[in-house]
Amino acid sequence: MLKAIEGGITAPKGFLAAGVKAGIKKSGKEDLTVIYSPTPAAAAALFTTNAFAAAGVLVSRQVAAKGTAQAAVVNSGCANSCTGEQGLADARAMAHQTASLLGLADDEVFVASTGIIGVNLPMAKVADGIKRAVAELSAANHEKALQGIMTTDTFAKVAAYEFSLGGVTARVAGIAKGAGMISPNMATLLSFVTTDAAIAPAALKTALQEAVAVSFNSITVDGDMSTNDTLCILANGQAGNKRIEGAGDPAYGEFVAALTAVCTDLAKLVVRDGEGATKFLEITVRGAASYGDAKTAAMAVAKSPLVKTAFFGQDPNWGRILCAAGYSGATIDPDKATLTIGGIVVAKGGMNAAADVKALQKVMAEKDILVELDLGVGGGTATVWTCDFSYEYVKINADYST
Amino acid sequence: MLKAIEGGITAPKGFLAAGVKAGIKKSGKEDLTVIYSPTPAAAAALFTTNAFAAAGVLVSRQVAAKGTAQAAVVNSGCANSCTGEQGLADARAMAHQTASLLGLADDEVFVASTGIIGVNLPMAKVADGIKRAVAELSAANHEKALQGIMTTDTFAKVAAYEFSLGGVTARVAGIAKGAGMISPNMATLLSFVTTDAAIAPAALKTALQEAVAVSFNSITVDGDMSTNDTLCILANGQAGNKRIEGAGDPAYGEFVAALTAVCTDLAKLVVRDGEGATKFLEITVRGAASYGDAKTAAMAVAKSPLVKTAFFGQDPNWGRILCAAGYSGATIDPDKATLTIGGIVVAKGGMNAAADVKALQKVMAEKDILVELDLGVGGGTATVWTCDFSYEYVKINADYST
Repeated sequence: MLKAIEGGITAPKGFLAAGVKAGIKKSGKEDLTVIYSPTPAAAAALFTTNAFAAAGVLVSRQVAAKGTAQAAVVNSGCANSCTGEQGLADARAMAHQTASLLGLADDEVFVASTGIIGVNLPMAKVADGIKRAVAELSAANHEKALQGIMTTDTFAKVAAYEFSLGGVTARVAGIAKGAGMISPNMATLLSFVTTDAAIAPAALKTALQEAVAVSFNSITVDGDMSTNDTLCILANGQAGNKRIEGAGDPAYGEFVAALTAVCTDLAKLVVRDGEGATKFLEITVRGAASYGDAKTAAMAVAKSPLVKTAFFGQDPNWGRILCAAGYSGATIDPDKATLTIGGIVVAKGGMNAAADVKALQKVMAEKDILVELDLGVGGGTATVWTCDFSYEYVKINADYST
Repeated sequence: MLKAIEGGITAPKGFLAAGVKAGIKKSGKEDLTVIYSPTPAAAAALFTTNAFAAAGVLVSRQVAAKGTAQAAVVNSGCANSCTGEQGLADARAMAHQTASLLGLADDEVFVASTGIIGVNLPMAKVADGIKRAVAELSAANHEKALQGIMTTDTFAKVAAYEFSLGGVTARVAGIAKGAGMISPNMATLLSFVTTDAAIAPAALKTALQEAVAVSFNSITVDGDMSTNDTLCILANGQAGNKRIEGAGDPAYGEFVAALTAVCTDLAKLVVRDGEGATKFLEITVRGAASYGDAKTAAMAVAKSPLVKTAFFGQDPNWGRILCAAGYSGATIDPDKATLTIGGIVVAKGGMNAAADVKALQKVMAEKDILVELDLGVGGGTATVWTCDFSYEYVKINADYST
């Protein structure tokens, strides 16, 4: 029912985008992006909970609270984080200039920044970039818009789907940047999602929360949460479906499924791009007392440096995996716990299952590895994604010079 | 008032110990230790909260609950963890044999194991070792007893102090093993403390909890908590002080201070021995809403892989430190937050303080580095200790083969 489509962030009807080279990035690549819906759109967003939230986050929170917006202005190369009053004034200036050029109110423009922490934005360059980006807005510039939000990413992260929504065809698309908080001093994750579905702001927010819980909030690279994490969605209703008013609406489920697909694709791409990563690990915990318990145990395993280095070393170290789940706080019945790696049972009843070593070595040598742990308690299940810890991880983060 | 003394675990009056080569360790070194007080002693202990608690932990919990004990039997080379019913029977057999040889009840003997997870104990070797260890019990064998609890430790960890207790002279001493949960598949931390102070079991337990909160529970190497962590203390009252009945007793504070000194020395030694560690980091958080908040923020900084790799790279990456404190959940006033590294202010008011680069490089090149973060909220203060993340850390944990 979901059909992958081309066209990136402007694949949904009625969205324009642009990305220009404003000279903020040392690399000289695109570093300023504007995403725009000429028609009013419902808006929702989720942000980092870090106490040192970046200026853009503070400004965008007010936009999200309003529930409607029509544009987002984003810069890469400078996170405008830990920049105090000046940083806040700069973020507001970005919103004001973009709003003025597009004939919008200031609080109809999301603002996001990613890059070095603790450095002020070069506002002359930013202002010139915004001016040119607005002039270049079109449905054809979606790739440059994606380039404009990237920092240390080694590949572009985009997903777009067409789906049936209450009988009509709708589209949802998203772009993301982030190579994990591994990126030296970079804000981890920025993501922008567009959809031509018609949905009320309140319903859009709950849909976004549902989709993010099982996608972006189910990945970890090293457990660090940045000061800039931002995920914004604009829904302009151009698909012409009967507006979704709430979770009770039959079409709500169709929308959440499509939005979840986009967010999950993007989240997995972020993990795959984790700097230094040599393995992509999918960790599923079953038999937990609840979804929350399952996710708690899965994330503890995903964050454990001992587990992550073991996978880098291609060592099926089941003791470390049980140990991490064991200290997660999740309810576990040790005598009923079962662990499989790549489908091979390595521990049963909380004890060594004496798995075939040759077969295990084959599994551990693969790039994508599935880890399944049954806690033996109830019916709760959760899946999270992570990568391994390599020499390269240490090198990248130790060699970076402030 | 505290005076460091020689004599290790048997420095306090009325304690005997022994460590023998039972052949459990591949290395052939001492691997079975017995610690004994011929006279009745108050007993207390703290254990891992890991759901996969080792067999020895399950047995020792019952001893601790009773509040009195006279001996501890410990083996290294095998953790007897994730070993099911057989493991539990083996741990009980260790307690029973030791108790029989010493004329004690089974529940007067603590049992602890450290080493590989998921492997059963070679009970014939263990039984022979216990027999010989009991025969060799003496105040002179404290160094062999210490050797007997070590696994991947690169140096012995011991502390002993003489102190004034209610007018008389008392002694408290401790030994510990552990090179952090970094140790491949090894149970992290075992520690045994003896004192000739006279103190009621209930008071001994609260004293131990107070001492551990600011020592063993204030260190982290990689955040992993093992299945075997155990800390036992025996207090036989041979010092002859008026028995301490509770926290209200004037001598209670003197005892806690001495016990805290021993536990803090041992905890720091564990961090210094963290495999692959090239830096010893003391992280003090001030200006927090409470001690709990201060410790939460300090531990988040201490556990952050980004912070730890930055110190390995000798990079004064203040953004990562603020970021880690920021996502810890502790209450922070970003505009009042101040961060110093080695006494140099690197961030003030949540912003870059433009510290002298040359001076900072000098500080970052040292082995011991002090990090001080003021959250700008209240009067809560906490100090924790950790080490850095090095290539060696990844190598040790990736190259280990199950």
